[in-house]
Amino acid sequence: MIDLYYAPTPNGWKISIMLEEAGLDYNIIPVNIMKGEQFAPDFLKISPNNRIPAIVDHAPNLGKEPISIFETGAILIYLAEKSGQFLPQDSAKRSDVMQWLMWQMGGFGPMLGQYGHFKLYAPEKISYAINRYHDEVLRLYGVLDRQLANHEYVAAGQYSIADMAIFPWIRTYKRQEIDLDHFPHVRRYYDMLKMRPALRRGLDVGKTWINRNPHEDAEARQKLFGIREKEQEK
Amino acid sequence: MIDLYYAPTPNGWKISIMLEEAGLDYNIIPVNIMKGEQFAPDFLKISPNNRIPAIVDHAPNLGKEPISIFETGAILIYLAEKSGQFLPQDSAKRSDVMQWLMWQMGGFGPMLGQYGHFKLYAPEKISYAINRYHDEVLRLYGVLDRQLANHEYVAAGQYSIADMAIFPWIRTYKRQEIDLDHFPHVRRYYDMLKMRPALRRGLDVGKTWINRNPHEDAEARQKLFGIREKEQEK
Repeated sequence: MIDLYYAPTPNGWKISIMLEEAGLDYNIIPVNIMKGEQFAPDFLKISPNNRIPAIVDHAPNLGKEPISIFETGAILIYLAEKSGQFLPQDSAKRSDVMQWLMWQMGGFGPMLGQYGHFKLYAPEKISYAINRYHDEVLRLYGVLDRQLANHEYVAAGQYSIADMAIFPWIRTYKRQEIDLDHFPHVRRYYDMLKMRPALRRGLDVGKTWINRNPHEDAEARQKLFGIREKEQEK
Repeated sequence: MIDLYYAPTPNGWKISIMLEEAGLDYNIIPVNIMKGEQFAPDFLKISPNNRIPAIVDHAPNLGKEPISIFETGAILIYLAEKSGQFLPQDSAKRSDVMQWLMWQMGGFGPMLGQYGHFKLYAPEKISYAINRYHDEVLRLYGVLDRQLANHEYVAAGQYSIADMAIFPWIRTYKRQEIDLDHFPHVRRYYDMLKMRPALRRGLDVGKTWINRNPHEDAEARQKLFGIREKEQEK
């Protein structure tokens, strides 16, 4: 059995989607990031970076010791290798999946995160920072759109963990006011993926949990972003 | 033979270090990022994200077609699998390397990058953004320091591609004014790694190339960061 330490966020969805797609048994352990539960000492042992999601596999394929894994990219690779699905064996195709997975991990995810912070959550509107990340986000959507113009899936000619990493971050487009009409191939891809039953089950995990808007709650904002409210008041 | 599209930056060093450590033959193709050569259409075919470094392997282990690879994390995994070095086969150790590689790709690298931008390069000093990334950078150094307190290398009990990904970004500490005295285990690790002859050869690649400070050159700054000078003048 796999324990999934989880909250319903883009990074959380990556893993709930993968577990559903791969048909692996899992047990959900909610982590209330609004209450700062990701900073608990017990969680630190599983996720040294204090971030959700993380997993503990109590029945790894080889070996008897449970394995705990943090970082979504590493969890996706581990689950793909465990289940033998969604990461091709062929060297060139395998690398293609790794490239786009890394592109999500190092670019699309972090930069959408920074844009979201400055556009939606930061207590002051800083136009330089908003413009910086808006430009970068549109550039990245352009990169993805060019790739999808002549590829059904983002990598290796097949559905893979790279798609599962990218999809949940596209899903933020409405809130971030990204106009997908400017990225028609991304739109086609998003609409195609969201029809997958297993992916939809993954997105539904934790859907009914209380999901407060951190913008409206100073304590939650502090926990999530470490914003020093007092400094902001100066 | 492997073609390495390269500039001497932290991300470039990751790959020159790995090629030297693995003892693979390679051919350096300089990409002058100050002149915007990473945006040339021919380079886009190799690196769809318009970033250096990228490689083309003209003699992959299997198959006859050359493989082009972008994203440093994916290049490191590919070269480790090609050479059979620096990425253990054992599932738990392998995942440990992947976790810290992903931590560098998704956190340590991008956040040091954002901090460097706002601290060193942005045309205005925005204290909110500088503080945000300074806090996050210190948090990440703390995560690394805790890991290294009881591990000689960052992952799997051995030197790996995760160390090669992390080291070049620690190397920015002087310029970013990070006091390594606060992170004694990172200091010990940094001093240990920098004595490796192959790593030093990797760092020397491109050392003598002209390395202008983009802060002093509006055109280079625009190419690198897409900063809209006219808007800044308003």
